Amino acid sequence: MTTPTTTASKVLDTLAADRPGQIERLIDWLKIPSISTDPAYRDHTRRAAAWAAEHLCGAGLKVELMETGGIGTDGVGSGHPVVLGTANPDAPGPHILFYGHYDVQPADPLELWESGPFEPVIRPAEGEVGERIVARGACDDKGQVATFLEALRAWYGVTGKPAGGVRMTVLLEGEEESGSVNLDRFLEQHADRFRSCDACLISDTGMLGRERPAITYGVRGLVYTEVRLHGANQDLHSGLWGGRAPNPNNELAKVLARLWDGDRRVTIPGFYDDVRPISAEERAAWSRLGCDAGDALSKIGLGPEADEPSGEAGFSAIEREWARPTADINGLFGGYAGAGAKTVIPAWAGAKVSFRLVADQSPAKVEAAFFEWCRARTPAGCRWEFVSHSGGNPATVRTDSELLKAAAEAVRRATGVAPAMIKSGGSIPVAGTLKSLLGLETIFMGFGLDDDRVHSPNEKFELRCFEWGARSHALFIDALRRKAGVE
Amino acid sequence: MTTPTTTASKVLDTLAADRPGQIERLIDWLKIPSISTDPAYRDHTRRAAAWAAEHLCGAGLKVELMETGGIGTDGVGSGHPVVLGTANPDAPGPHILFYGHYDVQPADPLELWESGPFEPVIRPAEGEVGERIVARGACDDKGQVATFLEALRAWYGVTGKPAGGVRMTVLLEGEEESGSVNLDRFLEQHADRFRSCDACLISDTGMLGRERPAITYGVRGLVYTEVRLHGANQDLHSGLWGGRAPNPNNELAKVLARLWDGDRRVTIPGFYDDVRPISAEERAAWSRLGCDAGDALSKIGLGPEADEPSGEAGFSAIEREWARPTADINGLFGGYAGAGAKTVIPAWAGAKVSFRLVADQSPAKVEAAFFEWCRARTPAGCRWEFVSHSGGNPATVRTDSELLKAAAEAVRRATGVAPAMIKSGGSIPVAGTLKSLLGLETIFMGFGLDDDRVHSPNEKFELRCFEWGARSHALFIDALRRKAGVE
Repeated sequence: MTTPTTTASKVLDTLAADRPGQIERLIDWLKIPSISTDPAYRDHTRRAAAWAAEHLCGAGLKVELMETGGIGTDGVGSGHPVVLGTANPDAPGPHILFYGHYDVQPADPLELWESGPFEPVIRPAEGEVGERIVARGACDDKGQVATFLEALRAWYGVTGKPAGGVRMTVLLEGEEESGSVNLDRFLEQHADRFRSCDACLISDTGMLGRERPAITYGVRGLVYTEVRLHGANQDLHSGLWGGRAPNPNNELAKVLARLWDGDRRVTIPGFYDDVRPISAEERAAWSRLGCDAGDALSKIGLGPEADEPSGEAGFSAIEREWARPTADINGLFGGYAGAGAKTVIPAWAGAKVSFRLVADQSPAKVEAAFFEWCRARTPAGCRWEFVSHSGGNPATVRTDSELLKAAAEAVRRATGVAPAMIKSGGSIPVAGTLKSLLGLETIFMGFGLDDDRVHSPNEKFELRCFEWGARSHALFIDALRRKAGVE
Repeated sequence: MTTPTTTASKVLDTLAADRPGQIERLIDWLKIPSISTDPAYRDHTRRAAAWAAEHLCGAGLKVELMETGGIGTDGVGSGHPVVLGTANPDAPGPHILFYGHYDVQPADPLELWESGPFEPVIRPAEGEVGERIVARGACDDKGQVATFLEALRAWYGVTGKPAGGVRMTVLLEGEEESGSVNLDRFLEQHADRFRSCDACLISDTGMLGRERPAITYGVRGLVYTEVRLHGANQDLHSGLWGGRAPNPNNELAKVLARLWDGDRRVTIPGFYDDVRPISAEERAAWSRLGCDAGDALSKIGLGPEADEPSGEAGFSAIEREWARPTADINGLFGGYAGAGAKTVIPAWAGAKVSFRLVADQSPAKVEAAFFEWCRARTPAGCRWEFVSHSGGNPATVRTDSELLKAAAEAVRRATGVAPAMIKSGGSIPVAGTLKSLLGLETIFMGFGLDDDRVHSPNEKFELRCFEWGARSHALFIDALRRKAGVE
């Protein structure tokens, strides 16, 4: 057990005293609709990058806005710059790479937001103590990144040195929500900037629950595809052609329905071949965490009876989220979706289909197998069009490194609770890239909650989580200072 | 065989001489975007009614614009007036009720139109002799109705009497494309106006093919529904919830895929119970028509191999269209449909599902059975929301009536070709209502072609078909004049 240094205590005091300023700054950032996937928001997205650059400058770092260049395969969501901040490049001791993203998910369906997605508001935390901030990006990832930025700012204010004098690189990406289409190439091109890093730190994951901080040691990978099934060369009248020509809506539903068997296992041949089995130790440790699947479902309006039939047979909810791959239709579209009736047989129908992957599955392999699976089921008279949107490797990291232990200790000191060791069903593809490209392990130290409505209307972040995040980052920097002999 | 009277010859001459004026008038009408299903086009729809009223006035008829009142169950597409024209209410002889509609289908997808849907243009008929007019409603039904209106106008010009002196009622509806939600009630309320009618005449069907005019003696019925499957009370992140909560997109596809068995027969229990079998005579007569399913498919970009697997096993394409019921998904929607990727599990997904029915199926019975079928397959954790959009009875009419024979003879005289006796897979629900309410048989005398792109982008009507329609209607009025002793 360690106690805060005198300097660290001052930093924590500064953070506590300046809370209103921190929230005001976050609100400013959240007002910028940095939706990277939609070209209409291109300028806004760049503005969000500039905002972050300015914040880092204000914390004493040297900051570069670096173009990622190029356009992704889907022609969208790319070209947003990387914000690269550097502190004390010649200092001794551990060199941490902090990764975060300043872009956000699209805000639709807009009509379900109780306040504007880009008009942040502070509300009481429903049925809970404290307050929350509601906006797109409040948690994912501006709010979480802000907890780190504010820790940096406080250390600079107290010590007059960026990051309190430790060596640190900060990389903020603007394309995470559109598949990080240019990041791998960026990291390869600038690998020299990151070669001396000892670990990556990411604040884009969640806690185990309210008042239950956590360190995440694994995230799932992702393959995101779009499949379009084409029939006739024109929309048809369903009276004149119903029963005489293929209906892509009917046929697409029939094909996609076969993606799961009766046990909700994905039916693509070989899909599970590379899945790392859950060890008996992990299964026991996860079971001890006492997660209640029914309780989680009740927060999204579902009963406990929805648990088992929602996922792969033979696994608990936590096992399904953390260690089993899934297939999901994220979007379905074909024919008429307006008000009233239109008796059309559409020329085509489409679906966005994604797969969450676990170690040691390969996104490229799964995507190819899925497209092949579709091809083998092409309905008569129809043809497929396939689009690759994005992907990322799953990542499971070591839990025994000194830096990860230091991060866990910082969280314990910041919150008074020893963090749980958990995994996440989400995807942070950069972790896989950093591992394969630079051999870097990642420390996922995040402060989100299960009910933060990440990617959904009314996304929020609890101010309590914000506070814990800023304190944890500040104390992790304190630990790095000790290791570097700065303090 | 009859030959045109001197007066009828003058009417045909007038029609031939005034062709440019007829097309100009039709273009004026087509410019009005009378999309009845979409409340945004309410005023335009009323303008299209007023336009028709003025045309009928110009042909000497007494015209009333009658409110249909009320709002349909779906809250849209209603309230558009009926245009009611009356000619010679006290004249002896047969009393024909002409029914048509002045509303049109929505024009989407707009990007596939080569010219504006409401900016009619005359183009050469691709690979064919003559020209065509391209616009939403060019065929369905403004173009077809205009062939009748122009016949009335010519008879008035030549004789100075509305409809050349025969008794006639003209009913033009503005809600056909939104399910005629108020028409049944309108007909019941004003039944006295129609009780003396001897037959209904409708020009909203097609010919057997280019240069092959036809009389249609049966149309299919329709049930149009919308089903929405709800899961969680909010959109979810597919990483955090994939495999832990039901995905309405996945589940909807799985349920709807079961709507057909391996022979493409609808699986709803009892669905085929009331289907009238095809008689050996009909089957033989239809076979003699020499329709080539592969040829029809080639016009919509498909190969002949698409024929058999597109519809119910054991029936020819023509049998499937004319005498077998079908189920079609007209719209599919759930989750993200924008550019790029969004890793969402949506709170709900929906589909517009319609059924084409044949004698003697009941729309109400089929709808109830479908909703019950869905209910019995409710995925765990999900709930259904059902919407009834519209419906209509199938109609098969007598082919041996004197009036139908007179209509067939008029077509023969007008075109030089004896019309084929055919059925249509489309639905004209008013025919069923007129039969049950007033005992009226309907004569479907239409001039569309299979490739007119009705309900699709670039809808068109051949000027050759327009000419044949106007001549046929003019000569049918001539026949009515003989029967009434006017000539």
